[in-house]
Amino acid sequence: MKTSLPKKVYLNGEIMDAGSAKVSVFDRGFLFGDGIYEVMAQINGHFLYKEAHLRRMADGLQKISIEFNPDVLATEIPKLLRASELLNKDCLLYIQITRGVAPRKHAFPTSTQPTFMMYATPNTFPGINTVQASVVTSEDFRWTRCDIKMISLLGNVMANEYAAQQNCYETVLIRNGMVTEASHSNVFFVKDRIVYTHPANRYILNGITRQIVLELCAGLNLEVREEAVKKDAMFKMDEAFLTGTTTQIASIKQLDHHFFYQGDGIGEITKKLQEAYREVKNEKKS
Amino acid sequence: MKTSLPKKVYLNGEIMDAGSAKVSVFDRGFLFGDGIYEVMAQINGHFLYKEAHLRRMADGLQKISIEFNPDVLATEIPKLLRASELLNKDCLLYIQITRGVAPRKHAFPTSTQPTFMMYATPNTFPGINTVQASVVTSEDFRWTRCDIKMISLLGNVMANEYAAQQNCYETVLIRNGMVTEASHSNVFFVKDRIVYTHPANRYILNGITRQIVLELCAGLNLEVREEAVKKDAMFKMDEAFLTGTTTQIASIKQLDHHFFYQGDGIGEITKKLQEAYREVKNEKKS
Repeated sequence: MKTSLPKKVYLNGEIMDAGSAKVSVFDRGFLFGDGIYEVMAQINGHFLYKEAHLRRMADGLQKISIEFNPDVLATEIPKLLRASELLNKDCLLYIQITRGVAPRKHAFPTSTQPTFMMYATPNTFPGINTVQASVVTSEDFRWTRCDIKMISLLGNVMANEYAAQQNCYETVLIRNGMVTEASHSNVFFVKDRIVYTHPANRYILNGITRQIVLELCAGLNLEVREEAVKKDAMFKMDEAFLTGTTTQIASIKQLDHHFFYQGDGIGEITKKLQEAYREVKNEKKS
Repeated sequence: MKTSLPKKVYLNGEIMDAGSAKVSVFDRGFLFGDGIYEVMAQINGHFLYKEAHLRRMADGLQKISIEFNPDVLATEIPKLLRASELLNKDCLLYIQITRGVAPRKHAFPTSTQPTFMMYATPNTFPGINTVQASVVTSEDFRWTRCDIKMISLLGNVMANEYAAQQNCYETVLIRNGMVTEASHSNVFFVKDRIVYTHPANRYILNGITRQIVLELCAGLNLEVREEAVKKDAMFKMDEAFLTGTTTQIASIKQLDHHFFYQGDGIGEITKKLQEAYREVKNEKKS
């Protein structure tokens, strides 16, 4: 986990030290959480599923009517990586686009320039994430447009803090008695060799790693059911895991007071998917 | 409505021109919408229901665990007003507190200083808001902690924009078939001289003007029922109005395709409450 600010920040066409990267207090990102973001992993010199990330970003911009052409990323990302001494190095790239600066009024202002901010931080991606995650459950009180990867994240922040206070890896969210996702990752279960995860609708963010895992399941001839799992049914599952760009695929060992495994145990399907995901990353090397 | 930036901004103890007021891109207000805000009206030299606003602010800070002592406002607000040439003048004061600057991680950082920002803009408060508001309805897809006056406002922004696109004054939000509130104001109805408004729970922001109106109803011997009104029942009401710090009390003339009044018509109870509210403002003069 990052514990210090990155060296360089890209802000509206300029690259500067992190300490100098400032936006107006009238930026709608600061006043209203009015913007979207994206996180991509560069591994072995390539951004993993870059096109999928950029498609989702364009989709989010369109959903909240911010006019910003992501094509500019093709030239600007390398500039940032070079200045950050991370060209072709394993790293996480954070991108944020807000609606820009305007006097405070809720409705969209006319003729503002979006604010475009990026930074990259060095990161080590183990072939397999060997964490044995302990997770807790909590009510999903977020909005019902979780399909938008927006920066109005206080609900996610509070859910994540709930896990942190209990020294847990994540908080699995329950809406109306059904599992949706976790505070910043998706959740999967396995029962009788069938893989379960919440359908990609307005109640979850359709993670890129979630999509990769679904592809991997198809390749492994694993049956997948995209349906919401009841809270009570979670504890009767054979396996459970989290997915995300930084999390990759993380086995859940403990869920509230229920243990899926003892010791270093890990589910067979979880392990197969982790190994298949490692191959995906290696393939991208070439 | 304001169409330009204010002259002066107060930021972390300093007063500066609006163009110079900048925060780090790593401010959690900018990255996560992680903060709260408050808007107060200074009328006739006094902030209307200042204590109630400050209590709500303290309550919001406590709910999201930001350690900031609002006592400092007593000395800092006058400094800002003086620099803004608004001492004792009618104006709106905006206050925002965020969790401060830290490397991006969802869970709360330790030992950060909150960011404290304020600005004031001149405003004219008519004795009575004579607008004949046209409002539209839309699904309430916001989170279910609307009791927290937070800056993760994209849901409210989108709802407000929906009204703006139809040249309407506000969007009334419907959750599970019941009226909650509007995008940045509370909603009241009157039927057979009984006043209805949503109870102050997690589905609405308990507006200070909402609370004043409830007091005024008591003073006028009007029966109040704090209960959610069904969407269909709205159209059978005798009167409807919005409340808010800038809105004051605004009569709703048109709701979707339904007209409560023709011409300059206004409901008897709405009018009485507007007159009583004007008296409240005048009393505060002394």
